[in-house]
Amino acid sequence: MTTIDFTTFVEQLASVSGETILPFFRTSLGIDDKGEHGHFDPVTAADRAAEQAMRSLIKRSFPEHGIIGEEFGNERADAEYVWVLDPIDGTKSFISGMPVWGTLVALTRFGEPVFGMMHQPFMQEMFSGDGGAARYRGPGGRRNLRVRPCASLADAILFTTSPLLMNETDRATFMSVEKSVKLSRYGGDCYAYCMLAAGHIDLVIETELKPYDILPLIPIITGAGGIVTSWDGGPAANGGRVIAAGDKRVHEAAMKRLSV
Amino acid sequence: MTTIDFTTFVEQLASVSGETILPFFRTSLGIDDKGEHGHFDPVTAADRAAEQAMRSLIKRSFPEHGIIGEEFGNERADAEYVWVLDPIDGTKSFISGMPVWGTLVALTRFGEPVFGMMHQPFMQEMFSGDGGAARYRGPGGRRNLRVRPCASLADAILFTTSPLLMNETDRATFMSVEKSVKLSRYGGDCYAYCMLAAGHIDLVIETELKPYDILPLIPIITGAGGIVTSWDGGPAANGGRVIAAGDKRVHEAAMKRLSV
Repeated sequence: MTTIDFTTFVEQLASVSGETILPFFRTSLGIDDKGEHGHFDPVTAADRAAEQAMRSLIKRSFPEHGIIGEEFGNERADAEYVWVLDPIDGTKSFISGMPVWGTLVALTRFGEPVFGMMHQPFMQEMFSGDGGAARYRGPGGRRNLRVRPCASLADAILFTTSPLLMNETDRATFMSVEKSVKLSRYGGDCYAYCMLAAGHIDLVIETELKPYDILPLIPIITGAGGIVTSWDGGPAANGGRVIAAGDKRVHEAAMKRLSV
Repeated sequence: MTTIDFTTFVEQLASVSGETILPFFRTSLGIDDKGEHGHFDPVTAADRAAEQAMRSLIKRSFPEHGIIGEEFGNERADAEYVWVLDPIDGTKSFISGMPVWGTLVALTRFGEPVFGMMHQPFMQEMFSGDGGAARYRGPGGRRNLRVRPCASLADAILFTTSPLLMNETDRATFMSVEKSVKLSRYGGDCYAYCMLAAGHIDLVIETELKPYDILPLIPIITGAGGIVTSWDGGPAANGGRVIAAGDKRVHEAAMKRLSV
């Protein structure tokens, strides 16, 4: 697989998933929209349709590759190359009509993420990375992604999707970091990690992540010069409790409170 | 002022403010970006430039109208028609690179809001209303805005920008509503009210609002069939503690807890 084929293929994946998902975004649900067999759930329908569409495209293009997805399970998960699919990260934003959700796609090789992408079809934005570099394309054009320096927690902008998603112990630990930062904001899902890679914010701290929530973001964050680990300093790829930082100094300062 | 002129004029206001603000959004701030006299603050610069641009356009088109804006104070605030300008609602989202901020413009007549607009230039979305109807235009086309029915708090999606913005007493009161809803989400600023008008969410509860934060949203919410008041049931136009609901039943149920 050459780099050129690969770039083109990923754009195709983004197109096909975006076209599948968008008709389900911000649909008003009247009585007519409910299926015969009860409640119609647009986000599940969009999630399934987009995963199906991406699986078809991957199988046609790379029949030897494996696929892991939330809705339709694993296929050849022990292959050298495995695609990890999360068609709608940020389902609660999606159902609320808020545009800060995204389609996450990772490619792993021997279990390690070698490429990651976040695509937002409504805004036509794509963030991607391979651990060595990270790139953006959107309404304002194309550019490389680069984290920004940040010397201390007191200078940092922190994001978490919602403290309500944390258990009580984790929330107390999180709040010990939160009280030291310049600004703490909620909401964002995958967007928060991309804003970190783009150098607009400094810290993302979350819990209860699934591997497919974070795997596609790792090569973007590290490609932009950032750092992402579990709260105990291990690899973030397994999900769970995750911290991402643009600057090593902020990561270290936060880790002192998270890893106690 | 005929309806046709007015519609055209508001589109002009949106264009001029959007063109002024966008170059400041997601700018990476290196050392070169800092002004001679210290720290360069892109959101303040964008805010001031956009308010200046909108003021010029209003003065040229309607010299007899008044203007109220955050950055440059009041001009003829006792005129029959007064424009209320908030170039960037959601400054904390703006500085974080998150696209959920908007430009708010209200037109009041004898102190009552008769027209309101929320414009998001990055996504090219506009929500507007006159109390009788409310409209949307965006990447997906044009449509009318209409709140959705919601029978009870247990069925409701609730938004607030951040509970961290509330004082302790207000937060405790807010949480007494939050614990009864189906889903509570943070983040959103003006977008949350527009998603309510569009029928995607059911309830927005906030505190510490300035009049210009909420005035432009009132004709959109009521135009879409929703209700917006202060926590004690008075007019929302003065800001402070505000509740917006798509369905009167949810408003009543929440008010029982907010107004104690």
